[in-house]
Amino acid sequence: MRATIIHGPGDIRVEDRDYPEIVRSTDAVVRVTASCVCGSDLWPYRGVRPTKEPKAIGHEFIGVVESVGADVRDVSVGDFVIAPFVDSCGTCPQCLNGVTVACDHLTGWGSTDEHGHYVQGAQGEAVRVPQADGTLRVVDGVTEPDDALTASLLTLSDVMSTGHHAAVSANVGPGRTVVVVGDGAVGLCGVLAAKRLGAERIIAMSRHEDRQALAREFGATDIVAERGDEGVEMVRELLGGVLADSVLECVGTKESMDQALRSTRPGGNLGFVGVPAGGPELPVGYLFAKNITVGGGMAPAHTYIPELLKDVLDGTINPGLVFDVVMPLGDAAEAYRAMDERRAIKVLLKP
Amino acid sequence: MRATIIHGPGDIRVEDRDYPEIVRSTDAVVRVTASCVCGSDLWPYRGVRPTKEPKAIGHEFIGVVESVGADVRDVSVGDFVIAPFVDSCGTCPQCLNGVTVACDHLTGWGSTDEHGHYVQGAQGEAVRVPQADGTLRVVDGVTEPDDALTASLLTLSDVMSTGHHAAVSANVGPGRTVVVVGDGAVGLCGVLAAKRLGAERIIAMSRHEDRQALAREFGATDIVAERGDEGVEMVRELLGGVLADSVLECVGTKESMDQALRSTRPGGNLGFVGVPAGGPELPVGYLFAKNITVGGGMAPAHTYIPELLKDVLDGTINPGLVFDVVMPLGDAAEAYRAMDERRAIKVLLKP
Repeated sequence: MRATIIHGPGDIRVEDRDYPEIVRSTDAVVRVTASCVCGSDLWPYRGVRPTKEPKAIGHEFIGVVESVGADVRDVSVGDFVIAPFVDSCGTCPQCLNGVTVACDHLTGWGSTDEHGHYVQGAQGEAVRVPQADGTLRVVDGVTEPDDALTASLLTLSDVMSTGHHAAVSANVGPGRTVVVVGDGAVGLCGVLAAKRLGAERIIAMSRHEDRQALAREFGATDIVAERGDEGVEMVRELLGGVLADSVLECVGTKESMDQALRSTRPGGNLGFVGVPAGGPELPVGYLFAKNITVGGGMAPAHTYIPELLKDVLDGTINPGLVFDVVMPLGDAAEAYRAMDERRAIKVLLKP
Repeated sequence: MRATIIHGPGDIRVEDRDYPEIVRSTDAVVRVTASCVCGSDLWPYRGVRPTKEPKAIGHEFIGVVESVGADVRDVSVGDFVIAPFVDSCGTCPQCLNGVTVACDHLTGWGSTDEHGHYVQGAQGEAVRVPQADGTLRVVDGVTEPDDALTASLLTLSDVMSTGHHAAVSANVGPGRTVVVVGDGAVGLCGVLAAKRLGAERIIAMSRHEDRQALAREFGATDIVAERGDEGVEMVRELLGGVLADSVLECVGTKESMDQALRSTRPGGNLGFVGVPAGGPELPVGYLFAKNITVGGGMAPAHTYIPELLKDVLDGTINPGLVFDVVMPLGDAAEAYRAMDERRAIKVLLKP
């Protein structure tokens, strides 16, 4: 089968690999019907994270279950499933607490599981899912989703669940004022999540016209293109002299975290889901002085999918709009280029 | 009148000062019936914070209103009142949000208000309260509290409100498991607050027998004397292999924050109220990886007092037990020595 392999910075190739098979009785094999490129895939692509040897890449996929091991109970052959961006057991204390991303038996896509068996990356034709019952979410009643539904289902694998996690971590709720820092797919999904949770006012910080438009479509009431001091003052002005109750940090850089911290009112909440790019550490004295609560991290997509899926299926939310480009899997290298050069918000790959 | 003045490290004197008078129409003058020494008063006492010139000290007091300005509405002469550890306006956006400690017109005791007028410290015979309506909380139906009630009312000024803030910030609630790092008056009040909020299991980290006993009286189900790796493993063992849902950091040092972070389970909450002693900054990568939410800061005592006061008055909680020593105001220097040498948990001063 074809699979996307990263060989080094800027070097993405679609190569032939063995088709996956059931290895252990708790496995499932899923034929991928759609996967995509994540902002975090650009880190090894840009060389920010080293690639020591050629490695299968991609961690977001949906598809159809082709085979299951003897001990798989909750997933059946023919089921249409969403795979969260990590593989989790479903039975350890962390999974039982709903924090599946801290699973004691966590496995990443495109790596090896705890038994030393190879796990395919998501940007390919098929994947062996090691802990199928603890990982996959079945989409009841769906067998062949159309393009729009395919796109929205795929966002639940990562970006919509992550935007939702940012909003939940920032304590978004009815009547709250919200600032979203970052206008990538996650930031845009954060806007949608904030709207869904009842926020009264949603300010999207964005400098790109296409993303501003989508932010508005997702529920942003205001756009702030300014950054730094100017951005903070714009937020304060828009909110009548006070900063935001809830701020979603959806980038992961020093600048974005600083922008987010400074946009949060005293006693407010900051939810951060941007993978921290080597810091900075959080200024404890500032948090103490302002009584700001900070939470976030990797989104427990497995935990969130059921409630978000319901809203996708009944058409309440349409997060799939973050995919502005669709390409065949064979064009994965071009997909990375388009994302890297910001010609695309997010690229969907069809095997 | 007599007032406690700090002249420099280890140099506490009780001196004569002018009796306070109403300066502005929003002032009240309160005759202090009880004040006390705070763990944070030990910072200038130990020279950790510099004392540039002799300065009135103390920020916790209760007493009787002796006079009020023409525009004071909610406080009357003869009222018995609790003063939170800072003076706040009650009308700015931060106060309206309940975050009185971030008041736009914040004034500290033993300093000058925003109009340049002197404000007495709490460890004296009387204090001018600049923003009386926004600051003081009247204790209805009480005129001359006995010693036990005096002690408990006085804790609402700071330590009990602060312990409660730690518990609230750590998301303590029914069924949650809790670790309290720090066995000073605030940590002990944190135990009591956790119990009051319905925690199922409360582990107090303490190495002092008298404090362990009070922690148990306040609701601790377990005591862990070990620290560092050993302390973390004891917590994990006591909780059946998982770390705590909620951790209260009630010290403010690098070691205590580290202990608190490492005692929190993935997806758990850390509430910190120990004034950060110069760091450390919070490790953002660790918080991200573990999905730990961190909140806290100075407690909005003004906001919390009504609900806590109710429980004090009906005897549900007795936080005044943290005062193990009572001294006359004239012995303030000895009170500081007793606190500094850990011969006392907390000293109450009677003018």
